[in-house]
Amino acid sequence: MQAILKGLRIVEGSAFIAAPMCGMTLAGLGADVIRFDQLEGGIDYRRWPVTADNTSIYWAEMNKGKRSFAVDLKSPAGRELVTELICAEGADAGIFSTNLPARGWLAYDSLRQRRPDLVQHEIVGDRHGGTALDYTVNAKVGFPFITGPADDVRPVNHVLPAWDIATAYLAAIGILAAERHRRLTGEGQQVKLALADVALAAMGHLGYVGEVHINGTSRERHGNYLYGAFGRDFITADGARVMVIAVSGKQWQGLLEATGLAGAVAELAARLALDFSREGDRFAARHELAALLEPWIFRQPLARLAKAFDECGICWDRYQTVTDLVLHDADCSEDNPIFTRIAQPGIGTYPVPDQPMYFSQLTRTAPQPAPRLGQHTDQILADVLKLDSAAIGRLHDQGVVAGPES
Amino acid sequence: MQAILKGLRIVEGSAFIAAPMCGMTLAGLGADVIRFDQLEGGIDYRRWPVTADNTSIYWAEMNKGKRSFAVDLKSPAGRELVTELICAEGADAGIFSTNLPARGWLAYDSLRQRRPDLVQHEIVGDRHGGTALDYTVNAKVGFPFITGPADDVRPVNHVLPAWDIATAYLAAIGILAAERHRRLTGEGQQVKLALADVALAAMGHLGYVGEVHINGTSRERHGNYLYGAFGRDFITADGARVMVIAVSGKQWQGLLEATGLAGAVAELAARLALDFSREGDRFAARHELAALLEPWIFRQPLARLAKAFDECGICWDRYQTVTDLVLHDADCSEDNPIFTRIAQPGIGTYPVPDQPMYFSQLTRTAPQPAPRLGQHTDQILADVLKLDSAAIGRLHDQGVVAGPES
Repeated sequence: MQAILKGLRIVEGSAFIAAPMCGMTLAGLGADVIRFDQLEGGIDYRRWPVTADNTSIYWAEMNKGKRSFAVDLKSPAGRELVTELICAEGADAGIFSTNLPARGWLAYDSLRQRRPDLVQHEIVGDRHGGTALDYTVNAKVGFPFITGPADDVRPVNHVLPAWDIATAYLAAIGILAAERHRRLTGEGQQVKLALADVALAAMGHLGYVGEVHINGTSRERHGNYLYGAFGRDFITADGARVMVIAVSGKQWQGLLEATGLAGAVAELAARLALDFSREGDRFAARHELAALLEPWIFRQPLARLAKAFDECGICWDRYQTVTDLVLHDADCSEDNPIFTRIAQPGIGTYPVPDQPMYFSQLTRTAPQPAPRLGQHTDQILADVLKLDSAAIGRLHDQGVVAGPES
Repeated sequence: MQAILKGLRIVEGSAFIAAPMCGMTLAGLGADVIRFDQLEGGIDYRRWPVTADNTSIYWAEMNKGKRSFAVDLKSPAGRELVTELICAEGADAGIFSTNLPARGWLAYDSLRQRRPDLVQHEIVGDRHGGTALDYTVNAKVGFPFITGPADDVRPVNHVLPAWDIATAYLAAIGILAAERHRRLTGEGQQVKLALADVALAAMGHLGYVGEVHINGTSRERHGNYLYGAFGRDFITADGARVMVIAVSGKQWQGLLEATGLAGAVAELAARLALDFSREGDRFAARHELAALLEPWIFRQPLARLAKAFDECGICWDRYQTVTDLVLHDADCSEDNPIFTRIAQPGIGTYPVPDQPMYFSQLTRTAPQPAPRLGQHTDQILADVLKLDSAAIGRLHDQGVVAGPES
C-alpha cells in the first residue's frame, strides 16, 4: 500500500467485480474505503473461488484494505446510518461509490439533500437500465467471433473479465476527477458509467468501429496471430510454447538477426513484392513468415532460444499455465515487491498483490487484508458517526448493526 | 467531452496503446494533453488498422482531443523545447506521461532539476526493464490455456488488448492521485507502472493466485461456461447465439420462471444432492443444467426468447459480429450519446466515441478529433513557451520543429 490518497474517504455499496475493484484500488492508494453490507453479507459474499469451508477468496481479494460496516439495510435505522456515513462532513468525505440500484433512499437526488456537494459514482449494466455482465457485454461487442483458432468457427468467450477491470479503473478515474473538481469549485455531482458503454467506447478507441465505417471491412479471426504486424505462438525443441512479436522495426530486425533468416526473408519479400520494414506487409505475409520461423524455433531448446531472443531485444514470452505462474514464476512471488504474504481472514496466508504502481516519494507497505464482515462496524460508528458506546450498544441490541462473527 | 479536468496539462511522449490511451482518456475529460512526436511521427504512426492511403485509424482514435507538437527529438534544440514544455510553470502543468525510454534527457532525475515538483508517469514493459506487450503478458499469466473450447488443448490468445486498457486507466489513476498529492503537499514524484505487473496483480485480485496457494487447484478450461455459477452460450430456433447468465439468486429464479424448467431442475437437484440456490452448485451441475436448457432455448425464436428473458430479469445478450455491432446496433451509433459523427483528419467522418462517463454537472460536447501531426506546434510554442513569431520562424527554418503537412 502506498498512501498517496491518505485522508480521502469513500463509502461503497457494491457487489461483484467492477465496483468493489474500484474501491479496492483506491484503498490500495491509502483511501479510507468503507464497504457497507447486509448483516449476512451481500450477493457476492460467496462468489467463487471459495475455500473448502465456503469462504470466498474472490471477496477477500476484492475488498483488501477496506473497512466493513454490517447493517440491516431494510430497516429505517440502518438506512439512516448509511445515509449519515455517505453524507458525513469533511472535505475528504462525501463520496459514494456504488453499483447497487441507486433508487429511493440511495438515489443521488435523495442523498444530495443531506450533502449538496456529494460525489456519487454509479456503475450500471447498460444505458437502458438493463443488467449486463462481462460475458454478455463481450458477446455483444463481437470478440468471441474473432477469438480462437481460425479453423474453428465457434465463438470463444474471454475468461478474463476485462470489461469489469476496465470499468473498475475508469470508475476510480471518475471519482478522482470529480473530487478534484469539487475541491477546486465546491461543486459535487453524480457520475454514471455503464459497463456496456465501457466496452462500446473501447471498440471505437481501438479502431474497430472506424475500420467498418471507413474501410468497409471488419476484423477477421486470425487465431493466435497478432493483428497488423508479425506475432504468433511457436513450439520449441523441448515442447515449450512461446509468443514471439515483432511490431516495431527494431523488434523485426532483432528477430531476423537472432534467427539468421534475413536472407530467406529477403527472398520472400522479393517474391511477394512486399516491404517487410512496413508492419502491415509483415501481417500480409504472416503465414509465409511463420513457415520460415517455425522450423528454426522448433530446433531450439527454450534456454537457447531465450538467450538468443533476449540478446537481440525481441519481444517474446513463454506460455505458462496458471499453476506454473503461481508456483514457479518469481514475478508472481514475494520476489516481486507488489506481492506480500499476508493472512487473509478465514482463508490463510499467501502472496497477495498490492496495486501495481510505484510512487517514488512514498513508502510501499504490505497490502492490507480484507476485513471480516462487520469488523469495523463499531469503530465506524464511533469515529465517523461520533456515537458513544451506549448508543452503539443499543444499535446492536435492536439488530440494526452487527460486528464480526466470532 | 466533459471538461471536468479543464486546465490540467499533461505532456505526453508515447507509443502504442497504454500510454496514448491514458492521455486520450484525460483529454476526453478536458485536460490539455500535448503529445510530442518526431517530425515524421513516432513508431506507432502507421499502426493498423489503416485506411487505403496508409493513414492510421488506430492512431487517430488513440490521440483524440490532444494537441500535437512535432519536433526533432535528436537535436539539442528540440530536446530543450520538450524539456521546457514538460517543466513549464503553473500549478496545472508539470505532468509528464510517457512509455518512451525515460533515460538521459527524459530521465526523471534530469527533468526534476528544472521542475522539482514534476509528476512523471512512466509505463514500462516489465519490472526487470524488459519489453512486454499485451500478447506476451497474457501468455505469461496463463489465460490462453484456460480460454477456448474444452475439447481443444491449443492455447487461445485474447484479441482484446485487455492489459493495455487496464494499464492505460491505471496510469490515469496514478497521474490524478499524484497530482492531488502535489496540490495538497507541494510534492511531485515519479510514478512507475509495468504492464506485466498490471496483469500479475490482476491474477491475485481475481483470486487465481489464492486458489492455487489455498485450495491447491487452479482454474480449468471450461469453454464458454461462466466460472463459479451458471452461464453459457446457447443457440435459438432461428440460429442466433445467446449468452445466458445466472449469477445472483434473482437471475437464477428468473431463468427457471422464464423457461418453466423449475420442476425438472428440482428433480435434478434432488438426484445430484445439490442446492441450486448456491451458485457453486449451479456450476457443479453446469453440464446437466445446460442439457435441460439447450432444447428449450433451441425451440424459441430470438424475439420470443428476448421477450421472455427480459420480462424475467435474466442477464443475457446476443452474440454479434463486429460488423453487426457497428452497422446495426443502436448502442454503437449516435443513438448512444457517447458516440458522435465527427471528421477525423485524413480518415473521414464516422461515429467516434467519447470517454463513457456522465458527469451530471457538466455538459457533454462532441469528442474532439485527433490532431494532424504537428498541427499545434506553433500554437504551443506561442501559448505555452511564449515564443514570438520570429523565434518560431527560426525554429522552423532550422528544422527543429514542424507544422502539419500541407
